[in-house]
Amino acid sequence: MARVALPLDEVQKRVGNLAGWSMADGALYRRFEFKDFVQAFSFMTAAALIAEAKNHHPDWRNVYRTVEVRLSTHDAGGITELDFDLAQRMNVLAAP
Amino acid sequence: MARVALPLDEVQKRVGNLAGWSMADGALYRRFEFKDFVQAFSFMTAAALIAEAKNHHPDWRNVYRTVEVRLSTHDAGGITELDFDLAQRMNVLAAP
Repeated sequence: MARVALPLDEVQKRVGNLAGWSMADGALYRRFEFKDFVQAFSFMTAAALIAEAKNHHPDWRNVYRTVEVRLSTHDAGGITELDFDLAQRMNVLAAP
Repeated sequence: MARVALPLDEVQKRVGNLAGWSMADGALYRRFEFKDFVQAFSFMTAAALIAEAKNHHPDWRNVYRTVEVRLSTHDAGGITELDFDLAQRMNVLAAP
């Protein structure tokens, strides 16, 4: 999957179709909320396996039952297909 | 282990004896750096099991091979024995 930064208008259009995500400081951003720490960290573990397989890793912060995720592609200097792909996978993992 | 905030002078004394940790914004803070994402997330997984067992959870952020940790005890309004205990356990987990 190409590590080429997508044009801003393309990013904005796609973000609008990605439940829960928004743009923040040049990254895709979503705050996930779970039932408790076990659920939050289970989500992170599943997402970590996918991230490692894709060699594309999130910037994320966990505080108890919340996980804040920021996705961008450092070496492309923007948001790429990889970010949207990982965001979509995370949404599937976090779906009830 | 008591969830009672320790006096600031006691906290400062102990932080000085805890390799890698400092005080930041009322929390114990350490930035861990690992070889790669697999090592960083392996550390987090081990620490998560300990945190859950203690019912005392970190505020932490992972970006690729780094993990920034902030420890404080919300319901005590400060830093407690629990924080020093978890910090110490994390140091053991992260030791080469």
